[in-house]
Amino acid sequence: MSKNLVPVGLSNRHIHLSKEDIETLFGKGYELTNFKDLSQPGQYACEEKVDIVGPKGTLKGVRVLGPARGKTQIEISMSDGFVLGVKAPVRDSGDLAGSPGAKIVGPKGEVEIEEGIIVAARHIHMHTTDGERFGVKDKDIVKVPVEGKRGLIFDNVLVRVSPNYALEFHIDLEEGNAAGLKNGNMVEIIK
Amino acid sequence: MSKNLVPVGLSNRHIHLSKEDIETLFGKGYELTNFKDLSQPGQYACEEKVDIVGPKGTLKGVRVLGPARGKTQIEISMSDGFVLGVKAPVRDSGDLAGSPGAKIVGPKGEVEIEEGIIVAARHIHMHTTDGERFGVKDKDIVKVPVEGKRGLIFDNVLVRVSPNYALEFHIDLEEGNAAGLKNGNMVEIIK
Repeated sequence: MSKNLVPVGLSNRHIHLSKEDIETLFGKGYELTNFKDLSQPGQYACEEKVDIVGPKGTLKGVRVLGPARGKTQIEISMSDGFVLGVKAPVRDSGDLAGSPGAKIVGPKGEVEIEEGIIVAARHIHMHTTDGERFGVKDKDIVKVPVEGKRGLIFDNVLVRVSPNYALEFHIDLEEGNAAGLKNGNMVEIIK
Repeated sequence: MSKNLVPVGLSNRHIHLSKEDIETLFGKGYELTNFKDLSQPGQYACEEKVDIVGPKGTLKGVRVLGPARGKTQIEISMSDGFVLGVKAPVRDSGDLAGSPGAKIVGPKGEVEIEEGIIVAARHIHMHTTDGERFGVKDKDIVKVPVEGKRGLIFDNVLVRVSPNYALEFHIDLEEGNAAGLKNGNMVEIIK
């Protein structure tokens, strides 16, 4: 039987902005500029970057991802959290309650958010047809083993299945480096 | 039966220097200054710091660890490798053949090393009595499972047993962050 293989997508720090915050940071009526399509349909890295200012330090030039979202969300690594001086919880996207805030600085203005900084929990996006092929459903938890000198088995990997998703295993740079993984490496899913 | 528990020790980037390189960087007859004893007997973090200059960038203020070693060795994270612009291999301490070099800049001079930059392979130090207690011997390979939201199982963990070692699981900051581990957390060894 063929293995359930999924390409790796490494996430660097980035920010999703609400329409309102885009206007405050970049000017009234401003529209984000597509710099590069991401593998998830409709998602793109933007030309735009902002600075994130925490109680202890600043992350300069953090890439904005588009399109606009309902609520501004900042995804950082744990090391970035040390730089900012905040304790960002490991959370699934959109689960922002009680997470730390920060000041966001753009070319035309600043926004102070009360909450919204998280370390993204590892997850796998897949299309409905992938879910059927792999025999997994939305919100299943799977394991992902990685071979090699830095071999390990990722546990607690959340599966998200939707006709709007493309197959990809999302981890942050620290998780990728800890496992010796690069963008596009193929890994297996174990149920 | 009680579990085989080991405290976690997270390594940040650091450098071990040869006696000759210490004199070139800090001056003739210079002796390193103990800043803080490390958990391994006889090992200490030094007051002294140096800059590591790679083809693409510089790591400033890299902590020197003492005492002097036979050969200079730089231990960095994979992210540090991107900053320097070098591809440091994942290696056991002392295994430096073919690894990248760099320029080391101290207050009194500079040293250009041909090789010596590695990403340290995860390992466990333990005293001979711990080895007997756990039923493992020098150079065994074990697994280390970690619980929690960032739960994973570290594979390929090298065990080093010696009467000169103290019990500790050594991983770098990226591995620690990938698993949600902090200094002093207790983890289990699985044979």
